[in-house]
Amino acid sequence: MSAREPGCYAVIFTSRLGDDDEGYAQTAARMVERAAAMPGFLGIDTARDGEGLGITVSYWRDEAAIAAWKADAEHTAAREKGRRRWYEGFDVHVARIERSYTAPAQAKLGT
Amino acid sequence: MSAREPGCYAVIFTSRLGDDDEGYAQTAARMVERAAAMPGFLGIDTARDGEGLGITVSYWRDEAAIAAWKADAEHTAAREKGRRRWYEGFDVHVARIERSYTAPAQAKLGT
Repeated sequence: MSAREPGCYAVIFTSRLGDDDEGYAQTAARMVERAAAMPGFLGIDTARDGEGLGITVSYWRDEAAIAAWKADAEHTAAREKGRRRWYEGFDVHVARIERSYTAPAQAKLGT
Repeated sequence: MSAREPGCYAVIFTSRLGDDDEGYAQTAARMVERAAAMPGFLGIDTARDGEGLGITVSYWRDEAAIAAWKADAEHTAAREKGRRRWYEGFDVHVARIERSYTAPAQAKLGT
């Protein structure tokens, strides 16, 4: 978690896992590692609750960085597998960040 | 989860809970209920993993709807309590949706 610059982009990926999640965790971890090596990658946060709803938000410098990540061959194969096998459904939203606020850990000590 | 119109807004709230989460779940549920009653509310998704990292994305028709929700008195009190007591840290990003993709449950049956 950290502040992002206005004008950068967030890709919000919301998904629901089905019953067959064999190989999912390994592929998800591999995709985080691979995304982090892409030019223009700014960060990623992911959370999945106990009922299979997951939200992953990745942050990118610009649209070109998002397009390059989308075109990555291993990522494309993983998306296809997710669509066919792992996910009951998902949404992707590409959004341009207008403004951000951050409260560091120290904030709770301040008052 | 559902597609959002381009031009609407996402508020991405990423937080890490501290050890003291007394009253948190009730307040969080109440805030979802209250947000959903606001004009311009389009939806909300939330996931928190086993290690206390949570991501909540709420969707709004326009900036005016976000401002009205931010000004809501009960929401303001809950944010203050979160900042002082519940959260070790958090980020908020306000982002304008450029485009969206949705895969319904049926998609996995298609191939």
